[in-house]
Amino acid sequence: MSKEITPMAKDYSQWYNDLVIKGSLADYSAVRGCMVIKPYGFALWENMRDALDKMFKDTGHENAYFPLFVPKSLFEAEEKNAEGFAKECAVVTHYRLKSDPANKGKLMVDPDAKLEEELVVRPTSEAIIWNTYKNWIQSYRDLPILINQWCNVVRWEMRTRLFLRTAEFLWQEGHTAHATAKEAVDETVQMLNVYADFVENWMAVPVIKGVKTESERFAGAVDTYCIEALMQDGKALQAGTSHFLGQNFAKAFDVKFSDKENKLDYVWATSWGVSTRLVGALVMAHSDDDGLILPPRIAPLQVVIVPIFKGDEQKAKIDVKALELVKALKAAGVRVKYDVNENARPGWKFAEYELKGVPIRIAMGARDLENNTAEIARRDTKEKSSVSMDGLSDRIVTLLQEIQQAMYNKALTYREAHITKADSWQEFEKLLNEKGGFISAHWDGTP
Amino acid sequence: MSKEITPMAKDYSQWYNDLVIKGSLADYSAVRGCMVIKPYGFALWENMRDALDKMFKDTGHENAYFPLFVPKSLFEAEEKNAEGFAKECAVVTHYRLKSDPANKGKLMVDPDAKLEEELVVRPTSEAIIWNTYKNWIQSYRDLPILINQWCNVVRWEMRTRLFLRTAEFLWQEGHTAHATAKEAVDETVQMLNVYADFVENWMAVPVIKGVKTESERFAGAVDTYCIEALMQDGKALQAGTSHFLGQNFAKAFDVKFSDKENKLDYVWATSWGVSTRLVGALVMAHSDDDGLILPPRIAPLQVVIVPIFKGDEQKAKIDVKALELVKALKAAGVRVKYDVNENARPGWKFAEYELKGVPIRIAMGARDLENNTAEIARRDTKEKSSVSMDGLSDRIVTLLQEIQQAMYNKALTYREAHITKADSWQEFEKLLNEKGGFISAHWDGTP
Repeated sequence: MSKEITPMAKDYSQWYNDLVIKGSLADYSAVRGCMVIKPYGFALWENMRDALDKMFKDTGHENAYFPLFVPKSLFEAEEKNAEGFAKECAVVTHYRLKSDPANKGKLMVDPDAKLEEELVVRPTSEAIIWNTYKNWIQSYRDLPILINQWCNVVRWEMRTRLFLRTAEFLWQEGHTAHATAKEAVDETVQMLNVYADFVENWMAVPVIKGVKTESERFAGAVDTYCIEALMQDGKALQAGTSHFLGQNFAKAFDVKFSDKENKLDYVWATSWGVSTRLVGALVMAHSDDDGLILPPRIAPLQVVIVPIFKGDEQKAKIDVKALELVKALKAAGVRVKYDVNENARPGWKFAEYELKGVPIRIAMGARDLENNTAEIARRDTKEKSSVSMDGLSDRIVTLLQEIQQAMYNKALTYREAHITKADSWQEFEKLLNEKGGFISAHWDGTP
Repeated sequence: MSKEITPMAKDYSQWYNDLVIKGSLADYSAVRGCMVIKPYGFALWENMRDALDKMFKDTGHENAYFPLFVPKSLFEAEEKNAEGFAKECAVVTHYRLKSDPANKGKLMVDPDAKLEEELVVRPTSEAIIWNTYKNWIQSYRDLPILINQWCNVVRWEMRTRLFLRTAEFLWQEGHTAHATAKEAVDETVQMLNVYADFVENWMAVPVIKGVKTESERFAGAVDTYCIEALMQDGKALQAGTSHFLGQNFAKAFDVKFSDKENKLDYVWATSWGVSTRLVGALVMAHSDDDGLILPPRIAPLQVVIVPIFKGDEQKAKIDVKALELVKALKAAGVRVKYDVNENARPGWKFAEYELKGVPIRIAMGARDLENNTAEIARRDTKEKSSVSMDGLSDRIVTLLQEIQQAMYNKALTYREAHITKADSWQEFEKLLNEKGGFISAHWDGTP
């Protein structure tokens, strides 16, 4: 069977790639390091994006859109930020192609269309945004500015992996401006908490909040806060970062405001982001050797109903029952599909929806019709049970909540079992090399 | 007053720019031809996007995401398409910056990081998408593919205008693949109808559907269908296009499928798109010399309530009434704001919300309190009336629908008054030069 998944224990990295590609989340593209996000993967990302977007708006943020390109002179204004990203910048140098006289039907870059100043494809937008904020901020009355942007960014990575590290990726970047350091730090912490809330309660992945060491800090930040989640290979994955930028960008772009006493000061800043990388974290945290396991709250499809029948008469009877259930579930806000595709056998469908991680599968056959029952299968535990059709839609709604919670609990139990305490450097090194997982240790602050 | 708008009759083009900038929709950026979409403008675009997205999904389409970059060799595969866009391509030639030894603290393009093959920043995605579809399509069972993408594209325009023509813009592009020409033509027409439905019923702008002449066709299309709307300067604006691409891209990328009889044939294609240009159309179709006039269905803010009071006691009493109304309106799904900003006078707020085109303004003062009334002002007609607070929220909901319809009717009346029939070429030329508007004429098919 072409959709076989490499077992996790055999080759973790190949297991992950198999899940992403065979689970129809994404595909490689013709562009080095860039991926195609397929409809099923994009529907998952849309659900994640919509939940986050609501959380941002509920905390007072608005969306806006800033240019894809950053002129080189702006890009280099905040020196640490520029230094941090210079090595992975895609650079636009020309604005026109022309017919290649040496190759009929082919094009070449038109040397006469060289830009006076090169444009960097944004790897992050602090520079272009702070250059804009300069025009928007004069007084404390213009503050705070609480803006978020959903967009694509490009970082020219040499070794890429689907979702986890790609040259182009989709993300959101919040960029806020404040009158005081305290307000900016509070915002930084608030958004870290929003991320933790989202990853734990929507993605069902427990996280540990922390502060990065100087060497791991975002280029240009005073402090970088992060959330880290433990994957099934015992390694941590950074799931989101929130940066207190101090006055670094305000100084680089000369953004001052007059306070209530009419005194001029530089503006305080934060930025914070999560990306399509979260999809990779989701896959790694929950899936098994049979495929994806998606938490109900963000699964594109929460329930699938598969009819099992012989002949049109049975089919017609099952249709009636199934469509009633579909209607009740849709009314309850459940994302449900009744799969009547006659080109595929039920067994093939079962495997396909297991691979795609649909939380609940309902099978309805001839005997079920007689008994007024249906067979429910949970993707997370693989438990099957025969249940009455009476009040089934309510039971499904409850079960979806139970699955969400059970997935979180399972991931939490796994993580707790993989946090080990280390009281010395020797112990720490030994654990890191032999056991993996999180290590809880004291740190004296030296690199 | 800094927010004064140049009158339409004095300078139509400056009037438009004033509305966009002073109405807080967008701003110029540091990047040539690229704009910043400000939160108010982006909220408007979000409402438009969400309405369209639902219409796409209701007609069976799914969203996906394809790379920003198109390798030059793919870009040039469909020759007419390549020829059509070659002159306006931003081209990435390098993937790294480095410290400039001649300029301390500055960066330069690293000549050692030249790409083997240049990457075009997508001006449209047919090439990258059809190169991907090649891997997804083998048999008629894989068809149709009905995919849409929301993204940014770049076309290096020499003369740009906010929203109407910018080097980078946001849009959606649908790309579908079909087994027969008929199915593809039907899809092309269906999506044109979706666009017309959206522009008429959400944007309140009447459109005329048509087919482009050969010279105006999308590069690479067999047929381009479009909708055109009449602006207040008597000129038409193209509001959306839907292309029947025939087998052109399938041939260029060698995408074949085996039909039910196991016969190989090239796949049939469509593409269709609307962009942030629609925001420009919206501004031009409805606004006046006092500012924007936004149709209720897509207005970021539908109702604003402004308190008029002396002293805290009055304020407290108005608060109670106003917050009751806010609650009732929100429960009815109305986007409402109670503006309690004490740094601005009511008169300033009135002008500000007029400028921003908020459909209904409600003023509540001391006398209103006594009489259990409020003053309602419509943005579109500027009519004011004093109405009872009893059942006010229901009346507002109805009034929003009335305003939506009235705006459409007004635009339609304007257009009907500006369609003139021409029965000869002489008449046609004269009308075009002297009167403007749409001209209804026969055409013999010659250029």
